[in-house]
Amino acid sequence: MRAADIAVQMATVAEDMPAREAAKVLAGQDLPGLIVVDTKGRPMTVLAGTQVLRMAMPSYCQDDPALARVIDEAAADVILNGIGDRTVADLLPRERHVLPAVEPKATLLEVAAVMARSSVPLVAVVDGDQVMTGAITLDGLLDHILGT
Amino acid sequence: MRAADIAVQMATVAEDMPAREAAKVLAGQDLPGLIVVDTKGRPMTVLAGTQVLRMAMPSYCQDDPALARVIDEAAADVILNGIGDRTVADLLPRERHVLPAVEPKATLLEVAAVMARSSVPLVAVVDGDQVMTGAITLDGLLDHILGT
Repeated sequence: MRAADIAVQMATVAEDMPAREAAKVLAGQDLPGLIVVDTKGRPMTVLAGTQVLRMAMPSYCQDDPALARVIDEAAADVILNGIGDRTVADLLPRERHVLPAVEPKATLLEVAAVMARSSVPLVAVVDGDQVMTGAITLDGLLDHILGT
Repeated sequence: MRAADIAVQMATVAEDMPAREAAKVLAGQDLPGLIVVDTKGRPMTVLAGTQVLRMAMPSYCQDDPALARVIDEAAADVILNGIGDRTVADLLPRERHVLPAVEPKATLLEVAAVMARSSVPLVAVVDGDQVMTGAITLDGLLDHILGT
């Protein structure tokens, strides 16, 4: 079995996408982060979901989460207003996570080796032009390797 | 809606559990990591799935993943043999991730504030004795807040 056989389609976001829209993409899929691609569809980085929350939540709540309890406003409004008019690029941390990539014919062990070097439980599968054709999650990889 | 309403049951592992067994628990659930609890069921830390791979994959493969392609052995055997007889405690990195925790009556905004401060997309829900009663994933939280 090869990388292409276990890769799945995943929603991606562009750097210039409004971050509010990206937050909804994040909520709509079972992933800990968002894959950011360039205009040609080449994976650039991963935006961790916790980073989106970090940029959205008022800082006094992060300093003292108990204060969040007294906010008399719908949680969705607080988060979407906190994101404001920023784009995905505005939310990316200075030190970006590198999203590792493999070619479609990579073996599962090769994918495991690439993922082992990373702190991100995701590997992109890219074609000869580095365009993403799918992605492999840690869970998907272990499902196939350990047969669960 | 409160933390207790959106928390889900998650498999946990103990520090003295054989790491091979923990790898199968990891593969059997849709999570990027494993929640490690003490003998009383109190959450201690999260073991990232990428850390499990890091400890299991032969180092020459991590240095050069293309070498993994030539290994003439089933991927499951390489990984389970790589883990060997180590326990979960043996796989924990020196700098452990802190798993944030909230009480059952925490509001969703409070959970979001706690998760925003963390690099782990998981929050444990604990009772008055700090025993874990469930956990909330980033995805589950956003599903409820943003209504997807």
